[in-house]
Amino acid sequence: MSEASRRLAPIGVFDSGVGGLTVLKALMTQLPHERFVYLGDTARLPYGTKSPETVARYSLQAAEALTDYGVKCLVIACNTASSVGLASIRAHIENVPIIGVIEPGAHAACDASRSGHIAVIATEGTVRGGAYQRAILSIRPDACVNAEPAPLFVALAEEGLHEGPIADEVAGHYLRPLFAPKTVHPNCSGAPFPDTLVLGCTHFPMLAGAIRRVVGEEVRIVDSAQTTASRVATQLEEVGLAADPKQRGSVRLLATDGLERFARVGSRFLERSIAADDVELVDL
Amino acid sequence: MSEASRRLAPIGVFDSGVGGLTVLKALMTQLPHERFVYLGDTARLPYGTKSPETVARYSLQAAEALTDYGVKCLVIACNTASSVGLASIRAHIENVPIIGVIEPGAHAACDASRSGHIAVIATEGTVRGGAYQRAILSIRPDACVNAEPAPLFVALAEEGLHEGPIADEVAGHYLRPLFAPKTVHPNCSGAPFPDTLVLGCTHFPMLAGAIRRVVGEEVRIVDSAQTTASRVATQLEEVGLAADPKQRGSVRLLATDGLERFARVGSRFLERSIAADDVELVDL
Repeated sequence: MSEASRRLAPIGVFDSGVGGLTVLKALMTQLPHERFVYLGDTARLPYGTKSPETVARYSLQAAEALTDYGVKCLVIACNTASSVGLASIRAHIENVPIIGVIEPGAHAACDASRSGHIAVIATEGTVRGGAYQRAILSIRPDACVNAEPAPLFVALAEEGLHEGPIADEVAGHYLRPLFAPKTVHPNCSGAPFPDTLVLGCTHFPMLAGAIRRVVGEEVRIVDSAQTTASRVATQLEEVGLAADPKQRGSVRLLATDGLERFARVGSRFLERSIAADDVELVDL
Repeated sequence: MSEASRRLAPIGVFDSGVGGLTVLKALMTQLPHERFVYLGDTARLPYGTKSPETVARYSLQAAEALTDYGVKCLVIACNTASSVGLASIRAHIENVPIIGVIEPGAHAACDASRSGHIAVIATEGTVRGGAYQRAILSIRPDACVNAEPAPLFVALAEEGLHEGPIADEVAGHYLRPLFAPKTVHPNCSGAPFPDTLVLGCTHFPMLAGAIRRVVGEEVRIVDSAQTTASRVATQLEEVGLAADPKQRGSVRLLATDGLERFARVGSRFLERSIAADDVELVDL
């Protein structure tokens, strides 16, 4: 393929369901001239509670399916898949830059934190896998990382209950213990509580309001959707594959099941109306 | 197989995950001399948000896997699977009684309700499929049925947040509109609000306390786990396949993924300790 035609090629974005649409939204805003193909593996979601082996296998299948669309770059817009599937996807798919959400988020957190005391909330799978903890410590070995699962946030975001008394109650339940002085790790030389919070699941930016009300204005909130989109933009520039600024951006949406629900719930995540007819059913 | 050896055979119980363990618990209490094989399709849960075709396909695969264990009876302990998969399972698996959770629950609701105004809460898939509504109206054509999805209950039960302020807030969110006078259907000749509530998802009995606090003491709550266990007991007696009272009951637990999580979350549902080693991994 010529360089010109490679620049025209779409960017593949993959997630277990609709959560990655927050990453797609950030990508579309930062890269308005790009073409995107988004695949949500709705038939097999959620990945957050499944075993690492299963998630790695599902992720590789989805990534391989996206390569059939001639993508020039692959974004793993799912924290769980990024944390356990990235190595395997990189080993199997060559010649295409593959970008996960964990590393950009970890870098942004290390940049944002003054004290080095960083909190991470994510799904059960991401927290147990320890990928954020490892990524942050590899960049900033003196950091103190407290990671806790906040799985109810996923259900709240999917149900459109991301604002209101239930969201506030749930945000308090997860975040108050994380931001209480007693959670300070003995090895942590930093402040008595975290000054930075990583939203380590693509669903969580939907609950930013409720989260902010619990942690207060001083805590820096790192949204890996934004940081991942910036990373993709930089990387495409570096390898000379950014779209021509005259090109008109576009989006193609694929899902493995439940197109009506994908469209309905996804509209909230993407903040633009999606009709069920706009979504194509694919079988992995 | 002789009748004596058929009586010795296990009862197969199938669910998408851990929710059906509330049905297994009721079965073990009512039928202490039976042997049970429980299969949780944890690799592909939840069924409640997936399309009917996908759920029917998954359910049939799981039911067929259980027949390999020589079961004498098959219990579909998942409302979503019962609502869309039962016909297909009955068509493919012969000579084994197959019992879902919807019909027993619908019968119990019709027996319990005086006014004929019945509320049902379930997953999105079960409500949209309309199986409870049809089953109740086929038994009691004058009934007025209001069915609403309450999917957050699933996440709350799985996370062990079935009691406390979050559970109370969520229960109020789902149930107050259902039990407000304005929801009365114009065709309903009964009371201005439901006198009976069907818990149309196997996870929901875990939230019985929070649900009771919202609906009050007067409303009859139908738990399909109990009614299904009674139906199984009756049917086994009728066909002469009930276990010998001298037989010692037993349980074998199978799951398609995440054995550690199945054991941890399942222990709460079954109300007895399950170790990850007690759960066998099967591939469908």
